[in-house]
Amino acid sequence: MARPTPLSGFPEWLPSDRIVEQHILDTVRKTFELHGFAGIETRAVEPLDQLLRKGETSKEVYVLRRLQGEDDAEASVSAADKQGLGLHFDLTVPFARYVLENAGHLAFPFKRYQIQKVWRGERPQDGRFREFVQADIDVVGAGDLPYHFEVEVPLVMAEALAALRGIGVPEVRILVNNRKVAEGFYRGLGIEDVDGVLRIIDKLDKIGGTKVVAALVDEIGATPAQAQACLELAQVSGDDSTVIDRVRELVDAHAITSDLLEQGLVELGALMTAAAVRAPGVVRADLKIARGLDYYTGSVYETVLVGHEDLGSICSGGRYDTLASDGAATYPGVGLSIGISRLVSRLLSARLVRATRSVPSAVVVAVMSEEVRTASDAVAGALRARGIPAEVSPSAAKLGKQIKYADRRGIPFVWFPESTAADGTPVAHQVKDIRSGEQVEADPSVWMPPNSDLWPGVVATS
Amino acid sequence: MARPTPLSGFPEWLPSDRIVEQHILDTVRKTFELHGFAGIETRAVEPLDQLLRKGETSKEVYVLRRLQGEDDAEASVSAADKQGLGLHFDLTVPFARYVLENAGHLAFPFKRYQIQKVWRGERPQDGRFREFVQADIDVVGAGDLPYHFEVEVPLVMAEALAALRGIGVPEVRILVNNRKVAEGFYRGLGIEDVDGVLRIIDKLDKIGGTKVVAALVDEIGATPAQAQACLELAQVSGDDSTVIDRVRELVDAHAITSDLLEQGLVELGALMTAAAVRAPGVVRADLKIARGLDYYTGSVYETVLVGHEDLGSICSGGRYDTLASDGAATYPGVGLSIGISRLVSRLLSARLVRATRSVPSAVVVAVMSEEVRTASDAVAGALRARGIPAEVSPSAAKLGKQIKYADRRGIPFVWFPESTAADGTPVAHQVKDIRSGEQVEADPSVWMPPNSDLWPGVVATS
Repeated sequence: MARPTPLSGFPEWLPSDRIVEQHILDTVRKTFELHGFAGIETRAVEPLDQLLRKGETSKEVYVLRRLQGEDDAEASVSAADKQGLGLHFDLTVPFARYVLENAGHLAFPFKRYQIQKVWRGERPQDGRFREFVQADIDVVGAGDLPYHFEVEVPLVMAEALAALRGIGVPEVRILVNNRKVAEGFYRGLGIEDVDGVLRIIDKLDKIGGTKVVAALVDEIGATPAQAQACLELAQVSGDDSTVIDRVRELVDAHAITSDLLEQGLVELGALMTAAAVRAPGVVRADLKIARGLDYYTGSVYETVLVGHEDLGSICSGGRYDTLASDGAATYPGVGLSIGISRLVSRLLSARLVRATRSVPSAVVVAVMSEEVRTASDAVAGALRARGIPAEVSPSAAKLGKQIKYADRRGIPFVWFPESTAADGTPVAHQVKDIRSGEQVEADPSVWMPPNSDLWPGVVATS
Repeated sequence: MARPTPLSGFPEWLPSDRIVEQHILDTVRKTFELHGFAGIETRAVEPLDQLLRKGETSKEVYVLRRLQGEDDAEASVSAADKQGLGLHFDLTVPFARYVLENAGHLAFPFKRYQIQKVWRGERPQDGRFREFVQADIDVVGAGDLPYHFEVEVPLVMAEALAALRGIGVPEVRILVNNRKVAEGFYRGLGIEDVDGVLRIIDKLDKIGGTKVVAALVDEIGATPAQAQACLELAQVSGDDSTVIDRVRELVDAHAITSDLLEQGLVELGALMTAAAVRAPGVVRADLKIARGLDYYTGSVYETVLVGHEDLGSICSGGRYDTLASDGAATYPGVGLSIGISRLVSRLLSARLVRATRSVPSAVVVAVMSEEVRTASDAVAGALRARGIPAEVSPSAAKLGKQIKYADRRGIPFVWFPESTAADGTPVAHQVKDIRSGEQVEADPSVWMPPNSDLWPGVVATS
């Protein structure tokens, strides 16, 4: 077999880089669980008709077929199998299906996190991933869902991302907006094509204000005054609730009255007030945030890594009034999704963080000769019994070679089991810190490495 | 959308059952890491030609195509994409590819664990899973790999499975054999078709000794005496190294001389001796264990859950001399794979274990009125800061309803934030254990739940 080459769009990490990814996954999971979110996993596949309900994603779906497709003619194959299965391209479609399928067994409001791979058949030359890991949280209600969850969910994500600062993950800025504000404002101006305005406003950073105004006039038939007002709203941003006052000034200037807008401003104000207390400096109201997806109905969120804005949003989401509906009940929700692979890929490629070693072991127990390997096994067993990751040297090579085995993997300690010298003198257990060279007598039932050496750490690359 | 129904062969768990699965995943991962195994993940897809190298699995592969297949005509699509991709059906094929692809960046012997989903297009009526989670460990060497890893690997698995006994997972029995013993014995008898004998011996439990002897005579042309000797070997089993003596008696009785057999017996004896010390009562030598796969060259392993032998092996593997080869080097290895989904499915369906609650939260902080929700947020934040999973009540409903919210999810504690009584008297923070009804004053910066209530537990269903 010739040496294989990587598949474009399917990232894989070397062991030390996987330690970085695993640390991030463990950290976000811990934060989600501290906030009471229950973990679920859904199958990787969904029926194609469910995946294709939103036409815009049809290009991205990987469709499955069994290699021995002729089997499908048999009656034993289920209808779902016949109609075709595809790999999920996000965790929202599967979650909506899971909620409907299990509604009778779930307690609402249901707070769940879900950390899984998703697949998109993107064109590889775009530098996009075809397989990547997402970490989603959503709160979904049966029938209704109070607004305060729209405050809570981005703050949970802020906490999860803040918990990563210690390993060198840059600061984040969570940009928030509220669809009700935008929709109320546009309608108050007399514009009916709300989605049209949002689509154009979404391009503001790319094409600039002048072209946005022109597009609003040309494409959706806004008057120049209406278009200018839409631009003014989109240009409002700020880090505290004074941003609400600035929107109100615009509202007054354009003599807009809208209950929807009023409700949106109250909600956005509540979010900014809570964020100032619970995540100061992290959340910014940014009235141009539109999010492409038309199912958002309230708060919308995007998140940039400060200094890495070119990466785009690493954590996005919003409020939707209908996650799912089964005729009997409608399930509104609010959720956010971290693009773990995108984040990890940048942290590694920009050399922002690294693992302190490439394996879990804190200790290599040396083997003095193959005949007494069991003595080394016993030492390693005693260490593990007290929670110290330890492995036994693969061979009874010269001690220098055994130390090199540890050194190549970044394992900080080598243990020399008790032995008998050539002259019959007993030699006690000793442990060597191979970084400092310091070697001391030690008891396998008592010795502990410093806490910082117990497990591989993830640290900022300085 | 009508209520969807489950897809046969694609298991999903409710939140409380997912806690059971997650506990098992965390436990095996912890054991693997304590032994120094490095975690990796590989992509879900492999080029079809790699997946189909072993003809026998061709029926089981799920092949992928992008829905907009016409794109594939473009030059931008890589060769691998054109030749087709399939979902991996195990973690060994991807691991072999990963080793070859990254050989220059890995330190050998390389000890890795890998916990991922795999997919097989099995016929659903067989009651088999089409998507399931495996947890694999392998040690792979560059060029050579000492025998002692064939002792270590099953003992790591024994430890991982023993760590699950506390939650109610039944005892396991790891059945071991050594291909060298079988091959040396058969060849010593004058039989050349070793794979043929193994294939027939593999059916011993199903068809019985008489039919095995008949099949050996009919199908591979053994003499009745040879066939009887093969059966006698297959019937040897035992829990300690005396089993080696019993094989030697057979060897002497049939006047067999074989260096290969001799080497196999030394290896099997070493495994039994080490197992008697490190996992007493768990490992059994069973000379009929054949394992279907022809790439095993030394030790082979199967594992049964005592009392659930009908489930088949939940953890299998063996030694292979050629995991992968790139012309320059050959990589021998030894590995074992736990079928996590099969295990979890049985634990749940047989009601052997259960989670103590359905969500992570240990505490629900009640909300006295929506105006003072921030006071409840502050209490929850103080608890989380000390590692206590806590959530805030979704509504300021009557306290009875808020308690019911906790009760439905099995959350043991409800916290009542400090408040002011109607007559202006301050009322201190209180926390109620809703199981006992006991309610006490408490300080959110000091109070801790009992350790057993901090996180959801997984316990034996008594």
